Amino acid sequence: MSRPQLQLDAVRIVLVETSHPGNIGGVARAMKNMGLKHLTLVNPKRFPDIEATQRASGADDILQNALHAPDLKTALADTHFVLGTSARSRHLPWPLINPRQMAQAVRDTLQQQETSQVALVFGREDRGLTNEELSCCHAHVHIPTQADFSSLNLAAAVQVLAYELRMACIEKTNQDNLAHPWGTSWDAPLASGEALEGFFAHLEQTLIDIEFHDPQMPRQLMTRLRRLYLRARPDCTEVNILRGIQTATQKCARLRTEKAK
Amino acid sequence: MSRPQLQLDAVRIVLVETSHPGNIGGVARAMKNMGLKHLTLVNPKRFPDIEATQRASGADDILQNALHAPDLKTALADTHFVLGTSARSRHLPWPLINPRQMAQAVRDTLQQQETSQVALVFGREDRGLTNEELSCCHAHVHIPTQADFSSLNLAAAVQVLAYELRMACIEKTNQDNLAHPWGTSWDAPLASGEALEGFFAHLEQTLIDIEFHDPQMPRQLMTRLRRLYLRARPDCTEVNILRGIQTATQKCARLRTEKAK
Repeated sequence: MSRPQLQLDAVRIVLVETSHPGNIGGVARAMKNMGLKHLTLVNPKRFPDIEATQRASGADDILQNALHAPDLKTALADTHFVLGTSARSRHLPWPLINPRQMAQAVRDTLQQQETSQVALVFGREDRGLTNEELSCCHAHVHIPTQADFSSLNLAAAVQVLAYELRMACIEKTNQDNLAHPWGTSWDAPLASGEALEGFFAHLEQTLIDIEFHDPQMPRQLMTRLRRLYLRARPDCTEVNILRGIQTATQKCARLRTEKAK
Repeated sequence: MSRPQLQLDAVRIVLVETSHPGNIGGVARAMKNMGLKHLTLVNPKRFPDIEATQRASGADDILQNALHAPDLKTALADTHFVLGTSARSRHLPWPLINPRQMAQAVRDTLQQQETSQVALVFGREDRGLTNEELSCCHAHVHIPTQADFSSLNLAAAVQVLAYELRMACIEKTNQDNLAHPWGTSWDAPLASGEALEGFFAHLEQTLIDIEFHDPQMPRQLMTRLRRLYLRARPDCTEVNILRGIQTATQKCARLRTEKAK
């Protein structure tokens, strides 16, 4: 039974701007019950706090070892597969899975590449994740709820996803299933969150340089491009190719500008 | 979507001698989120209580309609299938299932006889159910937990079981959703093979124009780009955006070439 733990160790829970410290404690307890260890707090309103410690009921180690990040992108810099919880359907549809499919996808990701880091991201108690934060995710997870009473307590939402991860880990010990996300072993490691954000920043600048994109009139351009590339889950080689293309494109744009002078 | 509600209506949650009213409220919220309505309280320590109402976060109807029973046998008098939650293995082995098997068993029971009444029984926060209470149950449900930190919060335990019931009810709907490649309805139709080939031809020409790609020395460039974009399964809007970027890029390349002349 050592292998399941190894896998769960690759998963971190990321809480974005949590208001109530009691919820952070409840999350820590749910995590420890299910065998998760790594908690990242993005800009919590009150932490550390006695209420967090009380609700943690002994999961103090998780609270003490929690990492702190000033924003979501920093929290995700070294991750390879990011799933954001979303209660509502958004303006722009994004790949949407339920908690069971989430656990399957995480398991497949870790089978493909053992060193992958996975993040499950949970938003604010009252407003969830912003559209910008949701656009940092490869896919969105929706916990099926009653339509007219759909807002889960934060710790309850973490409990459900952590439970599904644990069930998937136990299942794996029973049936050694060689499923890869793409049905085969891959030739290059998945790109990290930092590598992807570097790519997106470079892409946006290139689109400005060639006068395709006006940041004053963004429409949904960058969001749509993020969704497209994240869906494909690019590997490192692919990100290098795309950045090479951007550099060559920028060179063209510079020469054109110089000509215009 | 009316049938899942009908089935869940046959299930009641029974809490035995709960100490903390906040937990009763948390249970009510978890139940309402998952579509369960019927709560029975066996000899609660403090109820009604402001803490219960606060943690219920709007599931007041479940608290108000809760039935009260002096002991477990009274609470179970009109039930047909009783499942008790148990963290520990007991002196006398009893049929033991996990939450997923519990949901399957409840569904089978209700399919066999629609009028059956089902009870899920949860014990005290500190000591669970007594052996006598566990002997009132047809089977015991164990939520898989970390061995050295196995005590779930009461509302979290109810959340996990209620979630599994809901998943079992909507399984058919989930399968229907899998008909959508991304688990949700999309805002634009998938691009056709013809549209994709038009895009790839345009992409290759653009990469030649910006002197990134040499068809005499193709390496695996176009193959890798095809693999990347095809994996994402682009929709029509996305293909239009990508072709727009290529057209803008080619314009830059042309202006540069003209300058060089």
